[in-house]
Amino acid sequence: MKALQKIKPEKGLTLLDCPDPKPGASDVLIRVKATSLCGTDAHIYNWDEWASHRIHLPKIIGHEMFGEVVEVGREVSLVKVGDGVAAESHLTCGRCFQCRTCQAHVCKNYQILGIDFDGSYAEFVCLPERVLWKTAPEIPPELGCLYEPLGNAVDAALAEDLTGHTVLVTGCGPTGLFAIAICRIAGASRIFATDVSDYRLQLASAMGADHVFNAKKQSSDELGEMVQDLTEGEGIDAALEMSGDPTALHFAFHSVKNGGRVTLFGIPSGQVCFDLPNEIIFKGIRVYGVTGRRLFGTWYRLAGLFKAGLNIRSIVTHTIPMADFAKGFDLVNSGQCGKVVMLP
Amino acid sequence: MKALQKIKPEKGLTLLDCPDPKPGASDVLIRVKATSLCGTDAHIYNWDEWASHRIHLPKIIGHEMFGEVVEVGREVSLVKVGDGVAAESHLTCGRCFQCRTCQAHVCKNYQILGIDFDGSYAEFVCLPERVLWKTAPEIPPELGCLYEPLGNAVDAALAEDLTGHTVLVTGCGPTGLFAIAICRIAGASRIFATDVSDYRLQLASAMGADHVFNAKKQSSDELGEMVQDLTEGEGIDAALEMSGDPTALHFAFHSVKNGGRVTLFGIPSGQVCFDLPNEIIFKGIRVYGVTGRRLFGTWYRLAGLFKAGLNIRSIVTHTIPMADFAKGFDLVNSGQCGKVVMLP
Amino acid sequence: MKALQKIKPEKGLTLLDCPDPKPGASDVLIRVKATSLCGTDAHIYNWDEWASHRIHLPKIIGHEMFGEVVEVGREVSLVKVGDGVAAESHLTCGRCFQCRTCQAHVCKNYQILGIDFDGSYAEFVCLPERVLWKTAPEIPPELGCLYEPLGNAVDAALAEDLTGHTVLVTGCGPTGLFAIAICRIAGASRIFATDVSDYRLQLASAMGADHVFNAKKQSSDELGEMVQDLTEGEGIDAALEMSGDPTALHFAFHSVKNGGRVTLFGIPSGQVCFDLPNEIIFKGIRVYGVTGRRLFGTWYRLAGLFKAGLNIRSIVTHTIPMADFAKGFDLVNSGQCGKVVMLP
Amino acid sequence: MKALQKIKPEKGLTLLDCPDPKPGASDVLIRVKATSLCGTDAHIYNWDEWASHRIHLPKIIGHEMFGEVVEVGREVSLVKVGDGVAAESHLTCGRCFQCRTCQAHVCKNYQILGIDFDGSYAEFVCLPERVLWKTAPEIPPELGCLYEPLGNAVDAALAEDLTGHTVLVTGCGPTGLFAIAICRIAGASRIFATDVSDYRLQLASAMGADHVFNAKKQSSDELGEMVQDLTEGEGIDAALEMSGDPTALHFAFHSVKNGGRVTLFGIPSGQVCFDLPNEIIFKGIRVYGVTGRRLFGTWYRLAGLFKAGLNIRSIVTHTIPMADFAKGFDLVNSGQCGKVVMLP
Repeated sequence: MKALQKIKPEKGLTLLDCPDPKPGASDVLIRVKATSLCGTDAHIYNWDEWASHRIHLPKIIGHEMFGEVVEVGREVSLVKVGDGVAAESHLTCGRCFQCRTCQAHVCKNYQILGIDFDGSYAEFVCLPERVLWKTAPEIPPELGCLYEPLGNAVDAALAEDLTGHTVLVTGCGPTGLFAIAICRIAGASRIFATDVSDYRLQLASAMGADHVFNAKKQSSDELGEMVQDLTEGEGIDAALEMSGDPTALHFAFHSVKNGGRVTLFGIPSGQVCFDLPNEIIFKGIRVYGVTGRRLFGTWYRLAGLFKAGLNIRSIVTHTIPMADFAKGFDLVNSGQCGKVVMLP
Repeated sequence: MKALQKIKPEKGLTLLDCPDPKPGASDVLIRVKATSLCGTDAHIYNWDEWASHRIHLPKIIGHEMFGEVVEVGREVSLVKVGDGVAAESHLTCGRCFQCRTCQAHVCKNYQILGIDFDGSYAEFVCLPERVLWKTAPEIPPELGCLYEPLGNAVDAALAEDLTGHTVLVTGCGPTGLFAIAICRIAGASRIFATDVSDYRLQLASAMGADHVFNAKKQSSDELGEMVQDLTEGEGIDAALEMSGDPTALHFAFHSVKNGGRVTLFGIPSGQVCFDLPNEIIFKGIRVYGVTGRRLFGTWYRLAGLFKAGLNIRSIVTHTIPMADFAKGFDLVNSGQCGKVVMLP
Repeated sequence: MKALQKIKPEKGLTLLDCPDPKPGASDVLIRVKATSLCGTDAHIYNWDEWASHRIHLPKIIGHEMFGEVVEVGREVSLVKVGDGVAAESHLTCGRCFQCRTCQAHVCKNYQILGIDFDGSYAEFVCLPERVLWKTAPEIPPELGCLYEPLGNAVDAALAEDLTGHTVLVTGCGPTGLFAIAICRIAGASRIFATDVSDYRLQLASAMGADHVFNAKKQSSDELGEMVQDLTEGEGIDAALEMSGDPTALHFAFHSVKNGGRVTLFGIPSGQVCFDLPNEIIFKGIRVYGVTGRRLFGTWYRLAGLFKAGLNIRSIVTHTIPMADFAKGFDLVNSGQCGKVVMLP
Repeated sequence: MKALQKIKPEKGLTLLDCPDPKPGASDVLIRVKATSLCGTDAHIYNWDEWASHRIHLPKIIGHEMFGEVVEVGREVSLVKVGDGVAAESHLTCGRCFQCRTCQAHVCKNYQILGIDFDGSYAEFVCLPERVLWKTAPEIPPELGCLYEPLGNAVDAALAEDLTGHTVLVTGCGPTGLFAIAICRIAGASRIFATDVSDYRLQLASAMGADHVFNAKKQSSDELGEMVQDLTEGEGIDAALEMSGDPTALHFAFHSVKNGGRVTLFGIPSGQVCFDLPNEIIFKGIRVYGVTGRRLFGTWYRLAGLFKAGLNIRSIVTHTIPMADFAKGFDLVNSGQCGKVVMLP
């Protein structure tokens, strides 16, 4: 099969012929029909410091995927040949405290598709049945591959009920955009969004943000005043930090009202320094670290959100053949895109 | 002023001239601009057994209202002359355990507007400032008077987060219809509704119910099978019982899935007998009794829902002058209406 | 091996020689060192109507057990030969909505040890590793076999945090007694207990109940007044219904304060009729149906409770050899016992 | 009356004759019978930078108090002459979003006893009835004055249910010691405590800590290994940060297990820098900022904890006459004390 492999410790990927994977007794062989580009994949493509410490070569990368089941091991019963499936990218151990107490999303021993074992930038991928999610028949491949990052956005946004509440989303990359769409369909009263790219703020508006701000063009103080004005001096109920940028992080903590909540999802590249009394303690706020997706509550909920009318199609701004991967990563690196989907 | 008073222990009300109320130091005098008919008002109008034990004559009734502030006591600071206000109808004691621990909606000593003291079926009403809620300027009187019953629906529907979940609403009277509208805007995946009136089921569909069933035309078993089919055998996540009818009650408990929840809001007229093991215990479900409205979390949330786009205008099927009250109660008694609003 | 089998559709059990069970690849063979008598076992022993419909003969019964691992299948890694283990008695399917969303305790397809497949009233029992719980070395067999029913009591008592709150336990059978011990160690402010047996109320006091009442000797009205007096007119924060008796059930609902909660665990033998407005709706209470044990959050928590000092040893009032099973069931039927433990 | 006033912008306090306060219509005059020294009082006594910006002179300070009601305004009904009362030190506005939605502990406009208006280091203090809490008759003055700081510890410790869970308390000043006592009575499985003073760690052990560590004598890495060993590699369920010390803060975040929670109560004197991905995000933890006390849920709960047997008497290490205040503050500054109580 054709697959995109990282074979050398340098920028780039290589499209190679690799042996087809073989499913074991509880495994499923999937023909990949769509697989998308995540920021993590870009880190690996660019071969930054994090990637050089984390990835062992060679490796087929890619972890956001949708495909069709083409072969099942003899013990498989959750899916059958012909089913359309997305995949939970975290292969959890099933044996640690977290796995045995409904917190498998923070399993102590999980391995990640396309990072710890061969991924989905390939014509075929082989996965244990227990990480598969059968999507509804009406979901097309280019949306099916987004269940994985959408799940992040579901857990970030819905860590607490936000129906009728004000929300701030700092950072309008794909997961931030997903979060906006989710807040919209969940009945947020007003959605505020910040980013440094007008391109992405336009997408934010299209997803349902009521007020968008370019943090490059206005200071945090100016933005803060606008948020206070637009919330009649109350501040924000729920801030979703989806950028990892320190300025955005502090803006989130300062905008949230006393007794509100902040979800941390974006990954800062270095240390971030806080004035804890004024940013957290005296405000009496709740802070949630969010990573991964709840197995499989989040997936069921996401299926319900699609039935409720969740429409994220316009976040997929580019669909390209797998051979054009370099163009795809250029787009991701430029920030002039929503989600980029490859068709193997 | 003109007011609708219950003066005799029999069916009906009398439109009389009464003295204008006088506000004390922390009171507010309000010119009533819209006041709606609730099932409780119909019980008093019809003078049924409950009413004859509960109401002391004479009494101006009515508790769902919107008005304009025309005079304020010297200690009042939350509202000012000219403000548009709705009113929390429960005058809580502020001193019991429930009031001092954020559960004033189940205050042990509360008194009710239009039941324990003179109500809003009048040109003017006088209320302590602490029960008033300043509505947004864009809310017209005929919607402003619905905040009180809408608050019931908010607490019934959102007792738990239902974004992405399936909901069943049994009973499509006005509060059931409000609940459907709230579930819709909160991102319920699928909303099922039952009633015995096609008229009300049409309103239910207009409010966003995906599947409506006339419980007069089909047995509970038939309906149950349809719900199972439409939920792929899973059953319902959240059942909102808004009718008080025993058949509907059991249907709610049987439709909800293992681990789901049932909210009880509708008031049965007699005892209801349960098969507790199969309806509650072995299903591991949660049951919430809902009455009143959380002071004032529910009111803030409702304001947020209007900003999110909550549209309940079509539930107001009839708007009549106060002098036509008899026609209004005939409508309520017939069930061929949504909400009936009177303009004093 | 020796085992107690139900072989005929009538009262009693038969001690027989049976073939030793053989572990499959993911199974574990356990030498049973203690196995206790549950009300369910008594139903089967007595062969009442429920049992005659539920149990297929022949069957080795028993589901509360502790034993030592003597052989493991080739894929087993959670336990090893020599480990002391208790067992979750519910063999869940792992594939239904409930199992995949952290609610395996209400799995739609679970099978029960000693009911659906051969149980623990035997010298050996064979179980999949995933239902086993390795107990701490300091837990002796006669306490180890109680993890299963203790788990019920944990979920019933701790459905909500009760530290500093008043609790009422109606029904002081073994699970009610366990619940009292758990409430005591969890810092309940005052524990009230009712039963119809002075013998069991003495055990309740020994477990830490502050006030015990014999419901045979006083009317519900008299008891209600005493509870009101002892709570300064507030009523109870959390009522745990552990008896299934209708009088006790209503007493629980009437004693709980507005905004409180009721846990339903005891299984009534017929329908129970409620005045829903006054028992649930106008009180604004929460009702939890509790069955089974959360897998495996409850088990971890129970291990933590033992470390915190949970001491339930005196609830084990009788320890007998397996051959004396008839004496054991006579004790259970008489109610003049706490927990009866058999040693195979 | 005699009172301790801050009259000059320098270290110290002055014992002066001041006019007796006069209660208004809803106020209560209280003879102070015990009033304790808080870290905040020490900041004011020492006149550090924070105090010099926050306090307007002259001011009677002190906010932890117990007294006897000696006179009540004509509208007062919650307490009567002769009652023993503690006081909520935060005078909340009752009108902001937070006050109207059960979050008065983070009221946007609250004023503090002994900081914004005259406090309790005096023979008499005058307070609105709504901040008073009538203590049980068996509570002596030197414990009654501790309700206020105990309330902080209740909210810090019980932000989530901790029965059966492991807890780490970093910082064993009085509020940390209170938290340990509360965790003990709430059934924590194991309590770990750190401080830099052996004196305080001895008090921690007396309060029920299972494992105490002097962070001056061992590195965070060494302590971390010990915590991992003692929790069988799992880490801590709930970390209560009660010191404000950066080393302790990081230790708390590193010790807590994936999916656990950290409560922030201690106030750092400067910025604290975090590795957010590894300390919060990838761990999927919840962080709670805690300040003040829930009005009045926390007070009711505290009353329940005393009934459950909460015993904090040995935390009161010193009881002194008010005239010896300088000695009291020397003790607080030295750290060689638990709680110091003054008797006016």
